[in-house]
Amino acid sequence: MCTGLSFTTHDHYFGRNLDLEFSYNETVTVIPRNFQFEFRKLAPLSTHFAMVGMATISDGYPLYYDGTNEKGLSMAGLNFPGNADYKPEAHGKTNVAPFEFVPWVLGQFETIAEVKAALVDLNLVDIQFSENFPLSPLHWIISDKTQSITVESVKSGLRVYDNPYGVLTNNPTFDIQSFNMNNYMHLSIDPPEKNFSRELEFDTYSRGMGAIGLPGDLSSASRFAKAVFTKMNSVSGESESESISQFFQILGSAAQQRGCVRIGDKFEITIYSSCCNTDKGIYYYTTYENSQITGVDMRQEDLDANDLVAYPLVKGQQINMMN
Amino acid sequence: MCTGLSFTTHDHYFGRNLDLEFSYNETVTVIPRNFQFEFRKLAPLSTHFAMVGMATISDGYPLYYDGTNEKGLSMAGLNFPGNADYKPEAHGKTNVAPFEFVPWVLGQFETIAEVKAALVDLNLVDIQFSENFPLSPLHWIISDKTQSITVESVKSGLRVYDNPYGVLTNNPTFDIQSFNMNNYMHLSIDPPEKNFSRELEFDTYSRGMGAIGLPGDLSSASRFAKAVFTKMNSVSGESESESISQFFQILGSAAQQRGCVRIGDKFEITIYSSCCNTDKGIYYYTTYENSQITGVDMRQEDLDANDLVAYPLVKGQQINMMN
Amino acid sequence: MCTGLSFTTHDHYFGRNLDLEFSYNETVTVIPRNFQFEFRKLAPLSTHFAMVGMATISDGYPLYYDGTNEKGLSMAGLNFPGNADYKPEAHGKTNVAPFEFVPWVLGQFETIAEVKAALVDLNLVDIQFSENFPLSPLHWIISDKTQSITVESVKSGLRVYDNPYGVLTNNPTFDIQSFNMNNYMHLSIDPPEKNFSRELEFDTYSRGMGAIGLPGDLSSASRFAKAVFTKMNSVSGESESESISQFFQILGSAAQQRGCVRIGDKFEITIYSSCCNTDKGIYYYTTYENSQITGVDMRQEDLDANDLVAYPLVKGQQINMMN
Amino acid sequence: MCTGLSFTTHDHYFGRNLDLEFSYNETVTVIPRNFQFEFRKLAPLSTHFAMVGMATISDGYPLYYDGTNEKGLSMAGLNFPGNADYKPEAHGKTNVAPFEFVPWVLGQFETIAEVKAALVDLNLVDIQFSENFPLSPLHWIISDKTQSITVESVKSGLRVYDNPYGVLTNNPTFDIQSFNMNNYMHLSIDPPEKNFSRELEFDTYSRGMGAIGLPGDLSSASRFAKAVFTKMNSVSGESESESISQFFQILGSAAQQRGCVRIGDKFEITIYSSCCNTDKGIYYYTTYENSQITGVDMRQEDLDANDLVAYPLVKGQQINMMN
Repeated sequence: MCTGLSFTTHDHYFGRNLDLEFSYNETVTVIPRNFQFEFRKLAPLSTHFAMVGMATISDGYPLYYDGTNEKGLSMAGLNFPGNADYKPEAHGKTNVAPFEFVPWVLGQFETIAEVKAALVDLNLVDIQFSENFPLSPLHWIISDKTQSITVESVKSGLRVYDNPYGVLTNNPTFDIQSFNMNNYMHLSIDPPEKNFSRELEFDTYSRGMGAIGLPGDLSSASRFAKAVFTKMNSVSGESESESISQFFQILGSAAQQRGCVRIGDKFEITIYSSCCNTDKGIYYYTTYENSQITGVDMRQEDLDANDLVAYPLVKGQQINMMN
Repeated sequence: MCTGLSFTTHDHYFGRNLDLEFSYNETVTVIPRNFQFEFRKLAPLSTHFAMVGMATISDGYPLYYDGTNEKGLSMAGLNFPGNADYKPEAHGKTNVAPFEFVPWVLGQFETIAEVKAALVDLNLVDIQFSENFPLSPLHWIISDKTQSITVESVKSGLRVYDNPYGVLTNNPTFDIQSFNMNNYMHLSIDPPEKNFSRELEFDTYSRGMGAIGLPGDLSSASRFAKAVFTKMNSVSGESESESISQFFQILGSAAQQRGCVRIGDKFEITIYSSCCNTDKGIYYYTTYENSQITGVDMRQEDLDANDLVAYPLVKGQQINMMN
Repeated sequence: MCTGLSFTTHDHYFGRNLDLEFSYNETVTVIPRNFQFEFRKLAPLSTHFAMVGMATISDGYPLYYDGTNEKGLSMAGLNFPGNADYKPEAHGKTNVAPFEFVPWVLGQFETIAEVKAALVDLNLVDIQFSENFPLSPLHWIISDKTQSITVESVKSGLRVYDNPYGVLTNNPTFDIQSFNMNNYMHLSIDPPEKNFSRELEFDTYSRGMGAIGLPGDLSSASRFAKAVFTKMNSVSGESESESISQFFQILGSAAQQRGCVRIGDKFEITIYSSCCNTDKGIYYYTTYENSQITGVDMRQEDLDANDLVAYPLVKGQQINMMN
Repeated sequence: MCTGLSFTTHDHYFGRNLDLEFSYNETVTVIPRNFQFEFRKLAPLSTHFAMVGMATISDGYPLYYDGTNEKGLSMAGLNFPGNADYKPEAHGKTNVAPFEFVPWVLGQFETIAEVKAALVDLNLVDIQFSENFPLSPLHWIISDKTQSITVESVKSGLRVYDNPYGVLTNNPTFDIQSFNMNNYMHLSIDPPEKNFSRELEFDTYSRGMGAIGLPGDLSSASRFAKAVFTKMNSVSGESESESISQFFQILGSAAQQRGCVRIGDKFEITIYSSCCNTDKGIYYYTTYENSQITGVDMRQEDLDANDLVAYPLVKGQQINMMN
């Protein structure tokens, strides 16, 4: 369904695959500092950190899938069906609607430490954006340059997990996803040891056999294992080109190809993959049918303005013909 | 190590991932019809079909990794260490050196039927190109628009297999690769059936669970299973943009990310991915660090010329900045 | 480490494998109704249901591994290291030491419904039996003829789970063990469906391929999956011989062979396997080195007596020579 | 379907599981030295080595499933459907019908070296025993105290493989079974190494996790892996009781429980498990419903007699009641 990723070389990069069988006309959207953020149960934020990310804009409001603020804090929402459980309004709590959660975090905080402190009082309240945009069952990965957390509002309440992987996919709940990793601890980037028996001969007939056991299907638990293995073992140069190349390669390891997951008469695919240099505020993306990287630099916009700026996605292959 | 692929929508597409820990300065090389092809043990081909493909050029000779001729016949060589066994020269046989095999096939034949007939007498002879380019242990996938074959020269002789998958990776031998697919027959693009027990309840907690059991490591047997599953279930529109997007997505499902397979102090990566529209003779490729598709159209060249034309690869991300 | 099992044909059968690298001199022990059960924090039970089971007797006290009472209620404790968390004494709670838990349950209750009601106030208190028998980290399966539950005292408190499998092994916690079963829902006792592709041919080269994906290692999560699959699909006649044969066969599917799991310089093995006909009160067992079934019939004892009766285990193969 | 096993402690032991959904009224059969063995295409053996094994007797002829001769040479035939290919009679060859193969080998040879020499001229000829006993598709494991071989008559001819595992199951062909073991080389009896990442923490939450990846379904390729892992890592004392206990435990690791493999309206089960002490000529067995070991000592019979001696199987649990 989706894969979120935080990755650091010289700079810090944050992004995700959005895997769906349809698209909501999403755009790369820059919100300047003086865009008026209304909240259903809280006072509006009339000034806040600027942010850039992927959003569907509805009635002038940016419904963010993922984004990064000018301080480098980043956040993405990923599908969490069957587990996400939003609550009635609670007195004495900070009541935030799920669709307000990204602006509420990115508008105000600089670090994970600040976010964690604020989450103590958070109540994700079951208010939908509109009839057309009912509540999505989501959980979130939030990252700064040094750490990531996962936030899940489930039946038993709000759960905040340290996320040492910097990876999030979908179900099951993060405690089970983490537990499952124990079953993969033996996987290696090196050739397998011949532990089976000293009396038998074995042939390392292929490179890469040290990771036999790593799953390759597109279910969310398998994508989690695959993406975590790829991310934790990633090797990259520190230049911008090398870093974003490696970032999109990691996302590619968990990408969904059309035809592999059937949903009725449609197929789930990786609609877009994004990678934001959170130090520089440059948001890069590719789409299923445009593998060239397109970029939007939030600092090229007037960040003290009031109005959002939205860049429609460039789709269709942009081929560089040599002759 | 490598993944070869044949795929048909409206047109036919053929290409591969080259997975290595180093690069040989490969170029997209067009060989016109009157380029003089010398052979070590056969008469030269002074006129032949034109071809385009990826090659390292050494002493003016194109060492092809993969290529397509003007009739749409395509061929790629993939690593086959420990199994490839080239033979001494044999009288009464067509003695072709492994590095001559691609030009010998693409220069003369239009269809798999023709190739199969010619292979009856083939002897892949253990002659190296030069001291600097010793024999690579290879096997090959050869495809026309309707079918593919795999050719392996092993200890017991030359083996020619029908390849109904249109996919080739590396070890083990193709008969074992094919046999292994039986172990995956239950994998599905649809949600799993609840066969385990009628008395228990199960939760299809994620999309994509029908393919649980598909491997995700980068060994050649696992990449074969993953690429075959993705290819056989692929769904694509018929336009050029849709088709080549899907082709590169399939190759992406078996791509190698830097860090996942360590070779000494280096890492095996997908150096380039190629996709040739074999009907139009347009050769597309991406590189590990340039996700934009670059194209070379063989028909833009003078195909009646004598001299090869080589396009160095465009490397480094070509980013399309929006602001 | 261990596998517990509840199974019903005409009668109900309950038992377990005890998997360890050492043995505590366990005996088949019958406790008559008037054996005085002392409790550390509760009033003694001077009269109670009679019970039979496997126990190590220390200072005249039966430390039960598993047992069944005269009403057919059964219970077994299985290793739960790292997860079991016993609590300080709590006022207003029923404070039972872990080693008292089996007698406390089997001494007083007839059905799972009664047990569940009593568990509401239970506190498993961190009192060890003696210096020589410190606290074992355990969780329990409790079964009557129609249902089973699993009881776990973990950091967050006492957890009581319905156990529709009638199987218990060891770690992880039962919620995760249950969740994992979703990943096996496609496994089948019938040949696999050919879902992979309609265009390819597959060979069902062996019987039993419908369950490919079922794990066979001896870790507790894998034994759970294997034992649940075998149990849920078991087919048995209703006679005593057929029923206990099938029961020991199911336990055999999760048994541990010497050499497969090394613990320092020892090896974990299935020390004994037990099967109690809970309707008749006959306790059967085999040992690693005695595959003949030995039986103890609790109703052959004076169940109104005060003193326990203990039968040492018959070990060493009892071979029936024909000539 | 079946699992054959050769295992040495102080003495050498050879046996097998017979897995089927029906039974042929098999008996433990001793053939003395002067029993007249007729052959369809060869001269009769009127005197030969005595042997003991499991056989169905038809018209006075022992159709052996497995057996051992007085010199300690052993042999078992296992199902090999789809691969076994018997040949027309061939001049200049030793033409042996498949049902004659066990007597032909055990009657004449003492060692694997002798068998290998004789196999050079062997032709397994497509002659059935009778209308009621048509040809079974089989392959064989033959063992002496120091080595084992596997013999397969397939389309391309007779194949004789060294079998360093001392294990045989069924399909696929032995070369592929052996190749598959490479995919398990990392499995270990020790806890898994934490190769995945040095930056993450992992919990070895269970003993036995070093062998995660070992299959547990009952297909012949999975039983082969499971039985080989268990056999190669087996640890046993050298006494007769310890040795045969360990032998039956190894066979138990690949046993088939009723209900796990459905064949029409029947279920494949382990009909019997056998273990012959080949040094002493004692044949032990258990059946699905009789876990006590029954024994037949060939040296208790008159081995210079002419007539076979057959012991019907003891079925039904032989329970040793303590009270």
